Amino acid sequence: MSTDLADVGFIGLSSQSKDLILNMNDKGFSVAVYSRNWARAEDFLATEAQGTNIRAITSLSEFVSQLKTPRKIFLKVMVGHAVDHFILQIREYLDPSDILIDLANSNYLDTARRTRELEERGLYFVGCGVGGGLEAARTGPCLSPGGSPYAWPAVQAILQSMAAQVDGRPCCDWIAGGGAGHFVKTMQTGILHSNMQLLAEAYEMLRRVLGLTEDEIAEIFATWNRGLLESALLNLTVDILKFKDDDGEAMVTKIMDRAGTKGAAKWAAVEALEHDVCFPITTQAVFCRYLSWLKEDRVRASRIFGDPPMETFSGDKQAFVNDLEQAVYASQVMLYCQTFGVMAAVPKNQWTFNFQTIAHIWRGCLIAGDILIHIGEAYKRTPQLEALIHHNFFRQAIERAQPGWRRSVSEAVIRGVSVQCLSAALAYLDGYRSAVLPANLVQALDTCAQRGRVA
Amino acid sequence: MSTDLADVGFIGLSSQSKDLILNMNDKGFSVAVYSRNWARAEDFLATEAQGTNIRAITSLSEFVSQLKTPRKIFLKVMVGHAVDHFILQIREYLDPSDILIDLANSNYLDTARRTRELEERGLYFVGCGVGGGLEAARTGPCLSPGGSPYAWPAVQAILQSMAAQVDGRPCCDWIAGGGAGHFVKTMQTGILHSNMQLLAEAYEMLRRVLGLTEDEIAEIFATWNRGLLESALLNLTVDILKFKDDDGEAMVTKIMDRAGTKGAAKWAAVEALEHDVCFPITTQAVFCRYLSWLKEDRVRASRIFGDPPMETFSGDKQAFVNDLEQAVYASQVMLYCQTFGVMAAVPKNQWTFNFQTIAHIWRGCLIAGDILIHIGEAYKRTPQLEALIHHNFFRQAIERAQPGWRRSVSEAVIRGVSVQCLSAALAYLDGYRSAVLPANLVQALDTCAQRGRVA
Repeated sequence: MSTDLADVGFIGLSSQSKDLILNMNDKGFSVAVYSRNWARAEDFLATEAQGTNIRAITSLSEFVSQLKTPRKIFLKVMVGHAVDHFILQIREYLDPSDILIDLANSNYLDTARRTRELEERGLYFVGCGVGGGLEAARTGPCLSPGGSPYAWPAVQAILQSMAAQVDGRPCCDWIAGGGAGHFVKTMQTGILHSNMQLLAEAYEMLRRVLGLTEDEIAEIFATWNRGLLESALLNLTVDILKFKDDDGEAMVTKIMDRAGTKGAAKWAAVEALEHDVCFPITTQAVFCRYLSWLKEDRVRASRIFGDPPMETFSGDKQAFVNDLEQAVYASQVMLYCQTFGVMAAVPKNQWTFNFQTIAHIWRGCLIAGDILIHIGEAYKRTPQLEALIHHNFFRQAIERAQPGWRRSVSEAVIRGVSVQCLSAALAYLDGYRSAVLPANLVQALDTCAQRGRVA
Repeated sequence: MSTDLADVGFIGLSSQSKDLILNMNDKGFSVAVYSRNWARAEDFLATEAQGTNIRAITSLSEFVSQLKTPRKIFLKVMVGHAVDHFILQIREYLDPSDILIDLANSNYLDTARRTRELEERGLYFVGCGVGGGLEAARTGPCLSPGGSPYAWPAVQAILQSMAAQVDGRPCCDWIAGGGAGHFVKTMQTGILHSNMQLLAEAYEMLRRVLGLTEDEIAEIFATWNRGLLESALLNLTVDILKFKDDDGEAMVTKIMDRAGTKGAAKWAAVEALEHDVCFPITTQAVFCRYLSWLKEDRVRASRIFGDPPMETFSGDKQAFVNDLEQAVYASQVMLYCQTFGVMAAVPKNQWTFNFQTIAHIWRGCLIAGDILIHIGEAYKRTPQLEALIHHNFFRQAIERAQPGWRRSVSEAVIRGVSVQCLSAALAYLDGYRSAVLPANLVQALDTCAQRGRVA
């Protein structure tokens, strides 16, 4: 074991933690790992970490004493109480200006609180969103750090060298104070889950209306992936649809239609509600996951409420596919428009985001795609852009998409295919472009409901 | 001033408070009012309260000493800190088993906390939802009390005699412990706001697609109000649409199309999200209010994104109106289905609701209507009814409504009229009756996103 002081400390030894540690080591930073579980640490040192500068220590005081000051200690433990537990334990050993960096996907309100509490003790805290999936932890995640601004110069080189590099620029930059980094990560997850649902609705339309197989749908998605909809997520979708089980069937058809619900996308929807921002697409995507869990109820209801009596689709199949592509793209534009809208509204008077930077950071994860490049350009040209759809590129895209988008959603409505996000996105556009909404009647009802009479 | 002890104490002298006090007095209960503002109290005693048994006291200790024990003290002050402030002040003067009843529309989580805190000191707390609008405070509100169960026998006669009486039964009954009463009130507000939005969307369709005037729409709504859609809210809507300004124009057209957002409907949506329950209709109704506030943005966007180029509606107008009526009714059924679903899911392992009772209580407020009678009957027949749409009456209603509902929403989608709730309700039905959803693809994407690759 090296007797020099280590550049950074790391708490946590999950498989993703190990990859993050190895990533730091790859970039030339020596890492001391704290683990109470010596067998686990020893196994790591004897396998993946063999021949590296990584060391492991089982005593917390010893661990802290082996770090260069100001100490930079990364935490990658279970979201929630575990983070607070380790903070409470370790802060006793730290000196003023030492830095704790939380790499879990913590709730941004917790991060804001932890930043405040540690700063009161003279310590610095960074809450850093980590995106890009497990493999990216080693090869280059996208990182959204926020918290104590004084900490940034001390951790910048480490985080930016670990991050994915796109167009010669790291997918990592300082977001803002308090819980800003984790807030941006929450929004990122909201976009990811919404895009997944939009693609799932397109898959459903192609499967149910045109009766296509997974291979045929993969072909169509591959074509889309060479156009407007190009993204890492769509690419992955094509791979999934093509992937065969041992019996030659598409593996995806063997997966139960129940999608799990992790916290972050839900948090994004709750934030929008709490802060009076219209955010229907992501919220619907979250609700779709909830509905998917009611499998037994759905099976029972399907026996009672059949599909509308319809003839098999006899129209132009290619036109149908083209309309659907426009519907998905326009919905994505509305999704980003809403998400940047939430980011502009929620942290009012608290943070000033650089949306161009955020769009670049997100190019390091699964939502990476052409649309993010265009968004980055839109915000580069007009940093105070009021809404993305006012940017020329997106305005034209929406105008072009409208007729096909309307035909797609209308077809789904008539045939009884549930396209909750595609239709919520369209209803949002139609509301947003209404100079006059029927909210005058709602307001009148509110007032009279209070009074109990009209006049 | 009477020297006998008063039956109840009351804190708060807003106009609604005064009506509640007078209501209690009407029912034979003597009320002592605490107010630090003697001029205000004196004015009340000299006007509306003249010749009653109502007395007013400016000293808190004197106020408490003039109440029969166990003391029953009603609080009707501003939601939030004011409630805690008065609880903190008054609890010092109280004896074990005294009861505080909060009549504000408090957040149910606050009510749960207050119940817990006061019970720890040997006191009882009741959080009581009050519905029906300002006038109902005097003539008979609907009341949903919950909190300390021991308090119920002591306040039952007062609350039930104050409440609206429908079919010879008071619109007030014990809900359950903790914050249950205010939770039910939150759901009631969610239903009210959703129904307002559904009617607003029908108004919008009739105005924009058929080009009807407010008077013509009022006629159609009046016809609906003699059928399936009969409700106090629809009745009020008809009155509003008919109401003329001094210049003879419909007053509703002079009202700005920006609808305020009070807390309760938002809380209902947040609860559903937090507890993994699919709740799109009310959530969309909340979002519609948020969108209505972006008036300037909407006006600007309307200049850029025009309506789809469409010919004037040339179909059968009566058929269009009938379809729309079916769309609104079916959406209402789905709304109640979702709301009772949230009530069944959110308080899991905490409360057992009597849905028949709740449906009856709600008949004392603006959402009163035939649908609540049918809901009460459905839960009377099958208290453990899994979902309302499995009840014969509603199942048949949904089956009958589907074709017209689909035509209505499709027409809106094609013509660019934003019907966010009507379409969210339909998309929800279509998801709910799908034995197979595309959530298998979402789940596969989730798994592969974690791994960063397919296999």
